[in-house]
Amino acid sequence: MLPNRLAQQIAFIVEIDKLKRILRQTLLTDASRQENSAEHSWHIALMAIVLAEYAPAGVNLFHAIKLLLLHDLVEIDAGDTFCYDVQSNENKVMREAQAANRLFGLLPEDQGGELRNLWEEFEAQRTGEARFATALDRLQPFLHNQHTKGGTWQIHGITREQVQRRMQPIEEGAPVLWSFVEKVIEDCVEAGYLRSNTEA
Amino acid sequence: MLPNRLAQQIAFIVEIDKLKRILRQTLLTDASRQENSAEHSWHIALMAIVLAEYAPAGVNLFHAIKLLLLHDLVEIDAGDTFCYDVQSNENKVMREAQAANRLFGLLPEDQGGELRNLWEEFEAQRTGEARFATALDRLQPFLHNQHTKGGTWQIHGITREQVQRRMQPIEEGAPVLWSFVEKVIEDCVEAGYLRSNTEA
Repeated sequence: MLPNRLAQQIAFIVEIDKLKRILRQTLLTDASRQENSAEHSWHIALMAIVLAEYAPAGVNLFHAIKLLLLHDLVEIDAGDTFCYDVQSNENKVMREAQAANRLFGLLPEDQGGELRNLWEEFEAQRTGEARFATALDRLQPFLHNQHTKGGTWQIHGITREQVQRRMQPIEEGAPVLWSFVEKVIEDCVEAGYLRSNTEA
Repeated sequence: MLPNRLAQQIAFIVEIDKLKRILRQTLLTDASRQENSAEHSWHIALMAIVLAEYAPAGVNLFHAIKLLLLHDLVEIDAGDTFCYDVQSNENKVMREAQAANRLFGLLPEDQGGELRNLWEEFEAQRTGEARFATALDRLQPFLHNQHTKGGTWQIHGITREQVQRRMQPIEEGAPVLWSFVEKVIEDCVEAGYLRSNTEA
């Protein structure tokens, strides 16, 4: 018989496959379809390796990657909440906490607690790792929007000001990358991918 | 202007989005569609965290996760080669080496070399990290086949013997998990998900 501990871990591993069916607003760079949260999590984890040199001093890269790999798991129950959707964001915290209870509860208690702490650390944004992870989580869809001629921004009529506010965590979590982000925003406004605020 | 180093890194990050469009033979656990190599890479990286306690002594978990996150990148050019397709596997090595040249060549030279070395380490299977990574890379589609009532095995008429051979790296890379794998194979044969060898 399967030892109970391993059985719980395997059940969790099978369950999280569902994250591959959670669709985000972001389009793939060829605009062929919406991205799902599992492949998004892979992309930003690999981005952490490629952009490691821009992490603030003292950030533990492995720890940041753990946060990135599991930060979206709660969406399996709570769904992906579009960042510019004010109403859905209101009860997001409660929906995601319930999801965390169920999902991390599938694991052996010690391990479930450990992973839940990592998820809470990401949410709380109090450590350098959580802030660096969030910077990458914001940078990736930003690059996708640039490479799909405004993708999600165009669909929802998002303005430069909204994007600037949304990207703010990059200035905090990976400050060295901020001037690059500012430059891309200007390029995107100039190319017509993003509405300047005055056009409203 | 964007410093050249960061420009190269961003170009690589945008390019690897293409891994999300490389389809594997494996089905999602609800059998709704084929899995892509990006979401697969996420799944096995997170499996490494959940199953870390079964890694042989001395395996550096962060190092194994780096291998898992980038081991499939070459499929962007070389495609996913179905493991039971003998013909395609013959020129796989050459196709993948060319892909590695192009993809890691997008990065700054020092970093491209570093990531290419990690990919080669995975391929060579000489370190404990590479073997643990491969064990997980085999275990994940195995679980998907179990949960889709034989999924890919059914489609291609795969036998117990073929699966046993294909899973062998688990015995080498994560020996503690081997008896679990053997048990699941027996269960799958019994349930009719997998052909026993004698039925040919």
